[in-house]
Amino acid sequence: MTVRTRGRAFYEITREIQARVQQAGIETGLCTVHLQHTSASLLIQENADPDVRRDFERFFARLVPDGDPLFIHTMEGDDDMPAHVRTALTAVNLSIPVADGGLCLGTWQGIYLWEHRISPHSRTLVVHVIGEGGRA
Amino acid sequence: MTVRTRGRAFYEITREIQARVQQAGIETGLCTVHLQHTSASLLIQENADPDVRRDFERFFARLVPDGDPLFIHTMEGDDDMPAHVRTALTAVNLSIPVADGGLCLGTWQGIYLWEHRISPHSRTLVVHVIGEGGRA
Amino acid sequence: MTVRTRGRAFYEITREIQARVQQAGIETGLCTVHLQHTSASLLIQENADPDVRRDFERFFARLVPDGDPLFIHTMEGDDDMPAHVRTALTAVNLSIPVADGGLCLGTWQGIYLWEHRISPHSRTLVVHVIGEGGRA
Repeated sequence: MTVRTRGRAFYEITREIQARVQQAGIETGLCTVHLQHTSASLLIQENADPDVRRDFERFFARLVPDGDPLFIHTMEGDDDMPAHVRTALTAVNLSIPVADGGLCLGTWQGIYLWEHRISPHSRTLVVHVIGEGGRA
Repeated sequence: MTVRTRGRAFYEITREIQARVQQAGIETGLCTVHLQHTSASLLIQENADPDVRRDFERFFARLVPDGDPLFIHTMEGDDDMPAHVRTALTAVNLSIPVADGGLCLGTWQGIYLWEHRISPHSRTLVVHVIGEGGRA
Repeated sequence: MTVRTRGRAFYEITREIQARVQQAGIETGLCTVHLQHTSASLLIQENADPDVRRDFERFFARLVPDGDPLFIHTMEGDDDMPAHVRTALTAVNLSIPVADGGLCLGTWQGIYLWEHRISPHSRTLVVHVIGEGGRA
């Protein structure tokens, strides 16, 4: 599964992951999502007020500033090492139980791919579903 | 599985999770715990000295202060956006191998629900166990 | 599986984990790695430029300084509570899908055990693989 990002931002992928669970025909089980990159991450967060995502960007920009003179690894750009740190502080894999053929997410939980690089990237995810099939 | 919190603090849930593994009758497998919220998290941490948990609260209170003027999303209270950030910096799902019918935790590892909101909340967890049964 | 560390640093364990997947004879499935400690963590990060790991050490040393007067839990040393915090900010368990008998890691992804204590430690990991066997 591939997500084309338009630079640093949140991209909701809840529906795409849910569709994979349905395709797998699993009624009860476990869905694992793994992002194959080191400068973008996966985050389950509030899917209601978009200000939450804006505040996340502001907080992480202050915590791990682009162009921080602390960093030696700068050849891929000012935002590269901060992108690695932001990824380490969040996650690249998630495991969500499946029941009644759907992801057991809370009402306010959405699954996001968080692109940490400034420029657009093509990001690859591996979705794995294991468990038992439905009545069909 | 529901945990009623009395506000910001750590609530140990190791025994409750262990009981679910036993109920499932799985001898060897994998236990996944998913918390269905975006302002509380799951943490595996030291279960010995309570000062460790106190220091965690102090560190996170300094790192992500309540009422930080950086945040726009404040309508749900001064502690709401910090609670989202604290959740993102830790985790909402854990996957722990199961052997001999028990969780493969280290001697000093306890599983905690970390409530990040100041006021009491009712928190829902989904526990999924997969694997092979015992001798019974 | 045991890793003997020589103090605070990154220890790559990708090949060892991969070997366990092959031993298990699983062709398609899920590999979960759990570290049984609270002052060392697991991190999937860039395996190319070693400056990336150096920058990670520098960033975390600034974010969670050893001997920070904020901390009460100091009896096990100046680096003990910072080691717990560094562990909480990263992870102690990872779940990686398996396909064609191998871990579905990205080109630049390596699995590291990140020792956060200054002195050498012996660290125990539990590797769990579930799924379906190969052609054999």
